[in-house]
Amino acid sequence: MSEMKELYLDDLHVGQRFNSGSYVMKAARIREFAAEFDPQPFHLDEAAAEASVFKGLAASGGHAAPRYGGLSFANGIVGLGGEMAWPKPTRPGDTLHVESEIVEITPSRSKPQQGIVTVRSTMLNQSGEPVYLLTAKLLVLRRRDARSVPS
Amino acid sequence: MSEMKELYLDDLHVGQRFNSGSYVMKAARIREFAAEFDPQPFHLDEAAAEASVFKGLAASGGHAAPRYGGLSFANGIVGLGGEMAWPKPTRPGDTLHVESEIVEITPSRSKPQQGIVTVRSTMLNQSGEPVYLLTAKLLVLRRRDARSVPS
Repeated sequence: MSEMKELYLDDLHVGQRFNSGSYVMKAARIREFAAEFDPQPFHLDEAAAEASVFKGLAASGGHAAPRYGGLSFANGIVGLGGEMAWPKPTRPGDTLHVESEIVEITPSRSKPQQGIVTVRSTMLNQSGEPVYLLTAKLLVLRRRDARSVPS
Repeated sequence: MSEMKELYLDDLHVGQRFNSGSYVMKAARIREFAAEFDPQPFHLDEAAAEASVFKGLAASGGHAAPRYGGLSFANGIVGLGGEMAWPKPTRPGDTLHVESEIVEITPSRSKPQQGIVTVRSTMLNQSGEPVYLLTAKLLVLRRRDARSVPS
């Protein structure tokens, strides 16, 4: 998704921003994902969805979740936990992208080669409406050569 | 997953508990899920996973997420948001189940036909170790006939 180089803890700063590419949410994929992982009528069937609180087919929250928009860490994206919210449903045909910002960096005191980075992500649809919010704590490693530099 | 009857807000109380059936996490499915949704080396490749912080293949957090263990609401599971944590990785061959408990019920003041139910869920592996924690806020509807009973 991202073409940026892979980042280490040393490359990050609070306020740093990332943007994902865009993703079109297809009705068929909404149904397939839901059938396997989240078989709720309003993710599977148009008529049932019309009669539900969603008033139309909506993607599973797990499907709509941002795929770590635009972030590319050298050690991969290792999630420790986070908080999420779905302020609006994601609909078939929606074009989604994710804007992320680093809001906190906490180097580990016991493990100098790593730290915890808090990233706030917002998934927006084509109208600029937030459909998913995630504040996640990610484990990020330092660059090895940075550790061996004498201070 | 559950064979219980579908529940309305009227049927719920704080302290109520639910258990899911069990789910075996297969290595092939870990790789397939990751390839589509979370293409991190430690979810895709055994050797890369051995060299990672996981020290072995680990399922994507999105894949390991509980499928709303044992809950069956008449209006479906409508998630508004929540907090999650992955205290341990989920491994190929792990047998997982989810234990859930209702911790808060907040009837809506403006919409008498609905309320917000806070559910705390713990996904456990075959050794009884928590691998995923989720506290979720769910929108749950009242039974229609309950609303029409004169008070």
